[in-house]
Amino acid sequence: MNPPAPFATEKLIRFHHCDPAGIVFYPQYFVLFNELVEDWFDQGLGVDFARLHGEMRLGVPMRRLECEFLSPSRIGEKLRFSLAVKKLGGTSMSVAIEASAGGAVRVRALCVLVWMSLDTHRPVAIDQAMRAKLGQFAA
Amino acid sequence: MNPPAPFATEKLIRFHHCDPAGIVFYPQYFVLFNELVEDWFDQGLGVDFARLHGEMRLGVPMRRLECEFLSPSRIGEKLRFSLAVKKLGGTSMSVAIEASAGGAVRVRALCVLVWMSLDTHRPVAIDQAMRAKLGQFAA
Amino acid sequence: MNPPAPFATEKLIRFHHCDPAGIVFYPQYFVLFNELVEDWFDQGLGVDFARLHGEMRLGVPMRRLECEFLSPSRIGEKLRFSLAVKKLGGTSMSVAIEASAGGAVRVRALCVLVWMSLDTHRPVAIDQAMRAKLGQFAA
Amino acid sequence: MNPPAPFATEKLIRFHHCDPAGIVFYPQYFVLFNELVEDWFDQGLGVDFARLHGEMRLGVPMRRLECEFLSPSRIGEKLRFSLAVKKLGGTSMSVAIEASAGGAVRVRALCVLVWMSLDTHRPVAIDQAMRAKLGQFAA
Repeated sequence: MNPPAPFATEKLIRFHHCDPAGIVFYPQYFVLFNELVEDWFDQGLGVDFARLHGEMRLGVPMRRLECEFLSPSRIGEKLRFSLAVKKLGGTSMSVAIEASAGGAVRVRALCVLVWMSLDTHRPVAIDQAMRAKLGQFAA
Repeated sequence: MNPPAPFATEKLIRFHHCDPAGIVFYPQYFVLFNELVEDWFDQGLGVDFARLHGEMRLGVPMRRLECEFLSPSRIGEKLRFSLAVKKLGGTSMSVAIEASAGGAVRVRALCVLVWMSLDTHRPVAIDQAMRAKLGQFAA
Repeated sequence: MNPPAPFATEKLIRFHHCDPAGIVFYPQYFVLFNELVEDWFDQGLGVDFARLHGEMRLGVPMRRLECEFLSPSRIGEKLRFSLAVKKLGGTSMSVAIEASAGGAVRVRALCVLVWMSLDTHRPVAIDQAMRAKLGQFAA
Repeated sequence: MNPPAPFATEKLIRFHHCDPAGIVFYPQYFVLFNELVEDWFDQGLGVDFARLHGEMRLGVPMRRLECEFLSPSRIGEKLRFSLAVKKLGGTSMSVAIEASAGGAVRVRALCVLVWMSLDTHRPVAIDQAMRAKLGQFAA
């Protein structure tokens, strides 16, 4: 049996992502990363991201980030955003993210996301059911 | 003679920086980092950032970023953003950035900024006059 | 022959659209309006929005805006954004925009968009071919 | 006795406010309006905006907006943002906002802000003490 593919989705670069140099303003990549994580929860993991926040009172804030910006992106381009779980800890996970166009990587990142209670603002354990789901997107 | 202090400025956390969890949405830290770099050029280096883009046709895009988010920040807090040059290359520089409140570091980053022509979108050499200025903010 | 329907598209309310009160921060509706106009050009009018800016050097900046915010929107909601041309002037057009969910209007706006040269920053005449296209989306 | 002046503050147009046409992307004016309202509460009305949200559980969402964009603004410009109360209702107020540079108005808006409970998401009465404060900024 083949391992499931990591999660991927396509995003259009919009006018509002771009700066006066005509290229994506780099903080906007992180807004798009956040969309990617939402899409992954909703479509990949089958966990409604709005319910995760609203009812389950869980968030997945960024704890650590390493990111390389290899070449610029412009309005109207369609970028493929992909995500794979690199490491699954007790209360956090490392996730590799890439944005590419035409097979060339534009941005590459390694992110540590923490499983956090929105009530206590403290890390909480990732339960077994979720670990199984997350494991399906291991690199 | 004492070395000059690295550049620092205070920024207010605004409503629009915060997310539904009531804390700064992490991409907004990078928008604030960008403000810090603008302030550094304008006030620290004595190089008008608007002129840098408009007349000199130079930009300083992010090439590489490592960032740790140590604890959350909330609306109404005043954060001290500081910046120091860690390494000065031929066409790029490494800059350490910290945001802190009450002496406790909230966010810590190491950024590689490239000296880039806005016309050719290629790196260009940092000239001697600028190197001297940048050197004053070495860590 | 029935008149063509005004343009409509669905947009997901994202985490990054929402404020500490847990509802869409109102400037984000205008970012979504801008996406709607881009989608209308690309999919409705058959005019590539990136080419409009890049090659044709035309923009459609907002000149005047009237907007009512009737009820709040939350993360995870899918809003239907629709657009209809109300008036077609020589160098500008009035466009009605609505965002709704479950048939209830959340936001309603009337926008005057100017046909502007990105080189001269002056209004320019909307040519006959474009007028014909725009006329298909008259209310 | 002279009437008190309406509230005014200066804001720098930043790189991140500007779009690929090199001018302020219009939704960013509303982010700046929001900063202006925060500054007015903090500095003009003497009501800490963070406390208003956090402890008093009150927000002032936009209910209605009319806005004219008269001429574009560019990176590095300092705009004077001013605000005056035009009408004080039971649970809402009309506020006129202007952004200008060199005495020329760039953006002019009339905003209806609602006094809203963040717990019930319903309008609440503006109390007498607050009415007296708001009245000092009547046009």
